[in-house]
Amino acid sequence: MTRLTTNNVTGPEFMPQKFLKQERQQSRINIEEVHTFLESTPENAKLVQELIAEVTMDPVLKTCTDYYDLSKEEHRKVTAQKIARMALYMEQDIKRAKRQYRKDVVRDLQLNADSPTLTSRDLSIFDKRLSIVANQDPQLGTRIGVHLGLFGNCIKGNGTDEQIRYWLQERGTLFLKGIYGCFAMTELGHGSNVAQLQTRAEYDPSIDCFTINTPDLTATKWWIGGAAHSATHATVYARLIVQGKDYGVKTFVVPLRDPKNFQLLPGVFVGDIGAKMGRDGIDNGWIQFKNVVIPREFMLSRFTKVVKEGQNVRVLTEPVLDQISGYSALLSGRVNMVMDSFRFGAKFTTIAIRYAVGRQQFASKKGHGSTAEETQLINYPLHQYRVLPHLALVYLVSPAAYKLMNTYHSTLEDLYKISSSGDKSKLKPVSQKLKDLFIDSASLKATNTWLIATVIDELRQACGGHGYSAYNGFGKGYNDWVVQCTWEGDNNILSLTSARSIMKKFTDLSKGVVQTSESFSYLSPQFVGGVLKGTKVAQLATLKDYTDVWGIMLVKMLHFCVTLVSKTKDGDSISKQLVMVSRFHAFYSMLQVYSAKLSADDSGIKDENTRKTLWSLYQLFSLYFIDKHSGEFQQFKVFTPEQISELVQPKLFAIIPEVRKECVALTDAFKLPDAMLNAPIGYYDGDIYNNYYNEVLSNNPMEFEGPGKPNYHATLTTMLSRGFEFEERMSGSQDTQTLSKLGK
Amino acid sequence: MTRLTTNNVTGPEFMPQKFLKQERQQSRINIEEVHTFLESTPENAKLVQELIAEVTMDPVLKTCTDYYDLSKEEHRKVTAQKIARMALYMEQDIKRAKRQYRKDVVRDLQLNADSPTLTSRDLSIFDKRLSIVANQDPQLGTRIGVHLGLFGNCIKGNGTDEQIRYWLQERGTLFLKGIYGCFAMTELGHGSNVAQLQTRAEYDPSIDCFTINTPDLTATKWWIGGAAHSATHATVYARLIVQGKDYGVKTFVVPLRDPKNFQLLPGVFVGDIGAKMGRDGIDNGWIQFKNVVIPREFMLSRFTKVVKEGQNVRVLTEPVLDQISGYSALLSGRVNMVMDSFRFGAKFTTIAIRYAVGRQQFASKKGHGSTAEETQLINYPLHQYRVLPHLALVYLVSPAAYKLMNTYHSTLEDLYKISSSGDKSKLKPVSQKLKDLFIDSASLKATNTWLIATVIDELRQACGGHGYSAYNGFGKGYNDWVVQCTWEGDNNILSLTSARSIMKKFTDLSKGVVQTSESFSYLSPQFVGGVLKGTKVAQLATLKDYTDVWGIMLVKMLHFCVTLVSKTKDGDSISKQLVMVSRFHAFYSMLQVYSAKLSADDSGIKDENTRKTLWSLYQLFSLYFIDKHSGEFQQFKVFTPEQISELVQPKLFAIIPEVRKECVALTDAFKLPDAMLNAPIGYYDGDIYNNYYNEVLSNNPMEFEGPGKPNYHATLTTMLSRGFEFEERMSGSQDTQTLSKLGK
Repeated sequence: MTRLTTNNVTGPEFMPQKFLKQERQQSRINIEEVHTFLESTPENAKLVQELIAEVTMDPVLKTCTDYYDLSKEEHRKVTAQKIARMALYMEQDIKRAKRQYRKDVVRDLQLNADSPTLTSRDLSIFDKRLSIVANQDPQLGTRIGVHLGLFGNCIKGNGTDEQIRYWLQERGTLFLKGIYGCFAMTELGHGSNVAQLQTRAEYDPSIDCFTINTPDLTATKWWIGGAAHSATHATVYARLIVQGKDYGVKTFVVPLRDPKNFQLLPGVFVGDIGAKMGRDGIDNGWIQFKNVVIPREFMLSRFTKVVKEGQNVRVLTEPVLDQISGYSALLSGRVNMVMDSFRFGAKFTTIAIRYAVGRQQFASKKGHGSTAEETQLINYPLHQYRVLPHLALVYLVSPAAYKLMNTYHSTLEDLYKISSSGDKSKLKPVSQKLKDLFIDSASLKATNTWLIATVIDELRQACGGHGYSAYNGFGKGYNDWVVQCTWEGDNNILSLTSARSIMKKFTDLSKGVVQTSESFSYLSPQFVGGVLKGTKVAQLATLKDYTDVWGIMLVKMLHFCVTLVSKTKDGDSISKQLVMVSRFHAFYSMLQVYSAKLSADDSGIKDENTRKTLWSLYQLFSLYFIDKHSGEFQQFKVFTPEQISELVQPKLFAIIPEVRKECVALTDAFKLPDAMLNAPIGYYDGDIYNNYYNEVLSNNPMEFEGPGKPNYHATLTTMLSRGFEFEERMSGSQDTQTLSKLGK
Repeated sequence: MTRLTTNNVTGPEFMPQKFLKQERQQSRINIEEVHTFLESTPENAKLVQELIAEVTMDPVLKTCTDYYDLSKEEHRKVTAQKIARMALYMEQDIKRAKRQYRKDVVRDLQLNADSPTLTSRDLSIFDKRLSIVANQDPQLGTRIGVHLGLFGNCIKGNGTDEQIRYWLQERGTLFLKGIYGCFAMTELGHGSNVAQLQTRAEYDPSIDCFTINTPDLTATKWWIGGAAHSATHATVYARLIVQGKDYGVKTFVVPLRDPKNFQLLPGVFVGDIGAKMGRDGIDNGWIQFKNVVIPREFMLSRFTKVVKEGQNVRVLTEPVLDQISGYSALLSGRVNMVMDSFRFGAKFTTIAIRYAVGRQQFASKKGHGSTAEETQLINYPLHQYRVLPHLALVYLVSPAAYKLMNTYHSTLEDLYKISSSGDKSKLKPVSQKLKDLFIDSASLKATNTWLIATVIDELRQACGGHGYSAYNGFGKGYNDWVVQCTWEGDNNILSLTSARSIMKKFTDLSKGVVQTSESFSYLSPQFVGGVLKGTKVAQLATLKDYTDVWGIMLVKMLHFCVTLVSKTKDGDSISKQLVMVSRFHAFYSMLQVYSAKLSADDSGIKDENTRKTLWSLYQLFSLYFIDKHSGEFQQFKVFTPEQISELVQPKLFAIIPEVRKECVALTDAFKLPDAMLNAPIGYYDGDIYNNYYNEVLSNNPMEFEGPGKPNYHATLTTMLSRGFEFEERMSGSQDTQTLSKLGK
């Protein structure tokens, strides 16, 4: 409501609220069941709702539209305040997870050496809180995520049990206390190619210490989140040099700042990387080391150890795990980004769909003057096509994200247990699980971060001019998002590596190696055999077919790639196809996980209409992307041109109106409060124009010198009021009279 | 060079400069010829180079990397200073164009009623300067573009000769003097649907004036560039109401501010729209009118006139031109955006290709430790595929942009002449030309603004993390760019309207209507007949075939659409295809114009290698997009799956390495100085790391409280140093001792 609304209306009366009410009245699905389905379990759904309420209500954490007007410096300051606030929730969340309030839990965990080590279960509530604030304020999520997810997991992945306990628990890292960590991996000259990082850690037996050095400019640690202004310690990726021998890149804990007064330690040179496309609240920095000495014990030594016996120095390594674990710190980030894809997608589809329902433009039937009722955007087939498939995508991401998260936690716990137990025999199965996790997380991360970038961009366009206003969230949302396509592994590189591993699995088949993991079920001998023999053909008769077509596509593409490479002997020649293999693998596993969950007895979906609608989203997802990739589908003879025209596309445009019927309920089911959306054109009540107008006004008060009078008005008035006197001053120009005088 | 480079280098020595030198040495094309080809004529090429030098050297206009750190307020202030500076160049540019320095040209043009009216030739030099500063600082281009292009062209398109002379010349608009204009078309509730705008202009015969009113909130003028802080006058789109009758939307000149002191006039309520995704230097505002009275003569009356004879009031209209001319103000914007597509594309391909040549990552052959020479990004087939087709696009845009620009000027001059002469007979051919211009500009604007958005985004990703740094230009470049997909006609709406007109032409064929315009040559009876009879089939044998395949595609698609609509009677059902029709039409005309120019005797390309390379770009463009749209090409049977696999894709991946050989020379040929690129990783010398490092350092000086110590450090030190005392304060938690005491 605005104070203008008392004006008598002469033109067409827009009633966006009415339209949203209608949609909700006409909905025939159970959004409680849907919400639970999306949030995996009833318990989790309940927890998520509580956490959302807490972070949107908390006066420090809550984020309003004035957020879009903050400068880089303000963003950084506010983010720091939010970090400090989150630190308090951290302790509470651990007690909450342990269901222990009556004991001195945190003190005990930190100071009592016999106290249990923190499990991922203990941290599970704070992890969820973090993933939710990351949706409200991405830069805050990153700034804490770097400390816990990168710094913390680097120690967890590479440290001995004692080192893990010391740095994470005794020193307080996991309580956001004592230590603030950053992750010093990438350098100015090396990002993706970690093995070629150039920072040096030379062991000096005479002092039994390492000396850390930055040999040249390109070895400068670059893009390090938290380095510029926050981090007291860094896990540094550096080449281990012992007695002149280069053992490759290992990890070391290096102190940067005095936690008491935040002064940089000698030999540690740090700078601010400055302005970025987005996430300006993160203090990314660069670091150069000059003869920084750390004790030998600060090298993380779970898999590689430098031992000194008298004059004798030896380097012990466990190659198998060494290489895998080296990157495991990036794993949690990738896994989280799939969850982010769900949460960000949910946010922007909610905004754009509510706007599409409330916004009217152009009269459907020819009307005269201002009398004709205008059509809601959502009722244009093109607009439905532009908006609704993105909703289907968001729904398909959720179950895959939750499954990936669970696999991640279970796999890494097994890994720690086994490598602590020292029982090598159990190692093989775990490292296999870990490798599969690398493939799935890489292809799901790359595919979904790319798709959500497209979602945000296309939905912004679907909101027209108002989508370009900072106050409706798309701008910062996009700028904050797209870095996800680059960090924690560039999407193209990740796609290539995961696709190459998939190709390896494909060729291993002939050697009789059978896949156990569900997401590779299309690599079963029967399936592959059927496809290559031509007995297994694509169709869209059963629901299962909508997943299988992608399996068929994958088998044919892999077969093509393998044949081509064996011919050309040039692995690079197929890189364009490999990127597709990675993407199609992600589609296959998303469809597969979603349908498995929806078909399960414990799906929690009791209402028939609801189930039917959820299947419609599943079909829409598959059909939309088959059509998008109809080039590949036809080229690889999965579908004929006729099938595309007479089967795929008709089904696609038949299912869209089904989803349209429930589009508002399906976004309501995300249960994102306005405070989380932070975009007035997408608020729940649908009062688009008043909400948006009010936010614009409150963020832009009257100018100091009077309404509409800028502080630089003199620049303009001087320009406008300048006369012709300028004429005389112009080069080569002069009043004709004067010239004639001069000419005499 | 940085002061660190004196360090002795232990690791792999990166020598990006060496690689760029190599490329330039090995180049076998004539970049002077190429540059002239790109800039249309030798004279124009020379002029463009002079203007680029002027705007990049001018101390007020020049734009450095600190630009990326400016706040919204700073951007607005600096932009105003640049406008005032441009105003001075304006007068000089008119003299320069008229080749008259010795007369009091401007004074004469402004004050002498008999002086000639300014032609587009007189303004041609300033127009080019504007298009060039728009590439250096987009928001500046817009802020002046709104005044001249929208406000000015609205008057030119809708005013009588006398009104044009008065507002544009006598009052000084065209000299950026006296008046600063804005274009008050869109409203909060109506953007694309101009016919439904609700602002009212009611004629009151008793005072012989119009009263302008904003009837309700959604009729608030919204997004009006310049309204918040700069504009003294507005061309207002409002419903003409005479004696209660609504004559639809007409245009009126309405004063907003006193040019002397910048105070808003009574009844004019203005506010700042505030922060946007990009172009924060533009003071977009909203305007509400309450009983603002303007004389009848302030209505722009070329095509619609309100005449008062005693008590008798009549409204005279010229319907034919009325509707066309109503939107002609937007035409110049669309035409300019095609030129922008060329200039922006040139900028970002230059940056990304130089980076791809200088940047190395991963060893080609297996090497050990830090000894292996790493591969340049540009030598990875995938990277070539990610980068080089965008270069081809930029080359193909240029000739189309120049041709469109010329057609625009000639067509509108004809239109003014004829409608001034009052000779109705000559009207039909001109309005036909104007309609074709609407189609071409719409499909070229939509297609190319979309494609360049993709170019900027994908090239940023191709530059990895460094592409995300604000100082390398992609961030602001993208944010500033993407609004082009929305304003001056939403790309989807524009695509639909142009495609519908093309469909109309297609159906008119059967009525024997033949197309004259070159860009519709695929609609010739022979061509269409050949395609539908199947005698004209797609092939890639001759160069001409690379254009014709798109004509064949278009005919088949149009045939499909027409058939479907005649069946379903539902025009909306084909909107997805229509968007493609518009895009394919743009491709066809771009290829057609490019090949015509390159084949012409006066192409200016004498060197054989150069010609060959320019043809390679032409082929790459066509092949790349055939492959991108292979779904449509196969579905509509233009190519078979086998042809895609064995003809299109092999040719595509055979031509890319050809273009790669000259990729640096082809970007050098744009002749964009570093000052125009304003992105250190793309500077000419290729000294990527030193250039980038230096800019980051100069933009981020040491913190006030000491190196790496933020002004908010207390927030973090307090958090880190907090002890367990917090434990006691925690809800439901308490020291066990105390509890046991209390329990007694």
